[in-house]
Amino acid sequence: MRVLALLDGTLADPEAPLIRVDDLGLVRGDGVFETILVVDGAPREQGPHLDRLARSAAMLDLPEPDRAAFERAIGLVLDNWTGGREIALKLVHTRGVEGGDGTPTGFALGADISPKVIRQRAEGIAAVTLDRGVEPGLMQRAPWLLLSAKSLSYAVNMAALREAERRGAAEVVFTTPSGSVLEGPTSTLVMVRDRVLTTPPADLGILPGTTQAALFRAAEREGWTTEVAPIAADDLYSADGVFLVSSVRKITRVHTLDGKALPDSTGLHAALDALYESEY
Amino acid sequence: MRVLALLDGTLADPEAPLIRVDDLGLVRGDGVFETILVVDGAPREQGPHLDRLARSAAMLDLPEPDRAAFERAIGLVLDNWTGGREIALKLVHTRGVEGGDGTPTGFALGADISPKVIRQRAEGIAAVTLDRGVEPGLMQRAPWLLLSAKSLSYAVNMAALREAERRGAAEVVFTTPSGSVLEGPTSTLVMVRDRVLTTPPADLGILPGTTQAALFRAAEREGWTTEVAPIAADDLYSADGVFLVSSVRKITRVHTLDGKALPDSTGLHAALDALYESEY
Repeated sequence: MRVLALLDGTLADPEAPLIRVDDLGLVRGDGVFETILVVDGAPREQGPHLDRLARSAAMLDLPEPDRAAFERAIGLVLDNWTGGREIALKLVHTRGVEGGDGTPTGFALGADISPKVIRQRAEGIAAVTLDRGVEPGLMQRAPWLLLSAKSLSYAVNMAALREAERRGAAEVVFTTPSGSVLEGPTSTLVMVRDRVLTTPPADLGILPGTTQAALFRAAEREGWTTEVAPIAADDLYSADGVFLVSSVRKITRVHTLDGKALPDSTGLHAALDALYESEY
Repeated sequence: MRVLALLDGTLADPEAPLIRVDDLGLVRGDGVFETILVVDGAPREQGPHLDRLARSAAMLDLPEPDRAAFERAIGLVLDNWTGGREIALKLVHTRGVEGGDGTPTGFALGADISPKVIRQRAEGIAAVTLDRGVEPGLMQRAPWLLLSAKSLSYAVNMAALREAERRGAAEVVFTTPSGSVLEGPTSTLVMVRDRVLTTPPADLGILPGTTQAALFRAAEREGWTTEVAPIAADDLYSADGVFLVSSVRKITRVHTLDGKALPDSTGLHAALDALYESEY
């Protein structure tokens, strides 16, 4: 099932054309997005997602997203949802049409979570490491590379996932050329060792994770230690657990990395999942 | 004026919505494009542009563009054009809608050349060098970075142009971290010294230029020397001329680089422009 809400407070048919061919979101990937998980009618981390949408928009020099209009569109999707318990709710904000008056294009689209993602949450995934060609410090030196913006220009992220499939895996852990862990194409990496949760620093040029932040908040409250620190890809093999986390995939366990089995983290996964769910 | 032709051989209103909100070209920048210059009803380098569209599509594992359908759409735009002498004719080919049957989305959109580009062709431009963070060899090592594909994920290219504007310039010369010249965000760089035309090698991770290829073909026929070789950014200052070339901008002279005036290349520009025009 899908429900599409526009920023003017109306619903639209998700299968009908809505976007012009000269929308800069289409022809230049010139826009930003967020995906919010909704469970039993309650959006998770809606505030942080809207904050990050605004942050990404600022990095692209886009007009500020109309927060109240997006909130209304989210409510409209929820009010009209008659599908399953969970919704992947995507917010899109583009620069609008080329040569236009600068009015951005925006919408909120609710959709079912794919069965593949549901299965991966339960069973875990195989991942491969792929070089993203980005050394530490580049983000600060070259902000025009938009390294930590959640833009619509995701062709590389999609190409990396296809490369993973070619290698018999479902997911990617991007690394620097020197082998430092970055993130997944649409997720944040969290490593656990001796009850310490570690995630790489956003200033490496990666997206600050909303789900990772929620997990860390819950973990800290329950007496776990959390840290934001560089992770060498080689260290993943000896960790107690490696997880790719995002709104839609929640806490997904990596059971195999570059074809090599990781230590069994089934129990740890259950503990982290309970921590994360305790936030809601 | 604008004319929009679809791949089924029909015309459509360019100001009416045509694209669904779940088109992967929009939500993932997952598609490819070309822009062909049409002068007095004649498309320039149509074959090489269609070849490159197919090459970019293959790099993104997209279905092969339907060449005959694109050729028909191009013809349809030309047949229905009642505007000025020149058309910027954009071809777009996306992965189609998410979770669909794999049918790509495609269209051809003809539009007037912007007055700014026309003026820049005559007057030249100021450019700035910006680091693209990509070292030589990365394209071969990490093909998933799509470094020489003309994809719809152009947010970085657009951000670089805005950075140039902030620095009082109109264009960008992307460089490697170690200062080797790459390309412009939507153009190819050609340097001229002692009647030798030089452009950087595509295997640095840049787009092979259709207009640059046409210019080199014409130059070779007229006894100039051409070469494909690395260019150090510092060498641009002492060249006889530095040009950014593309279908729409033709041969545009760079008169200022990083705020420093380059040697006057007005005469050289006229010679190259005549060479290029002699191809048609």
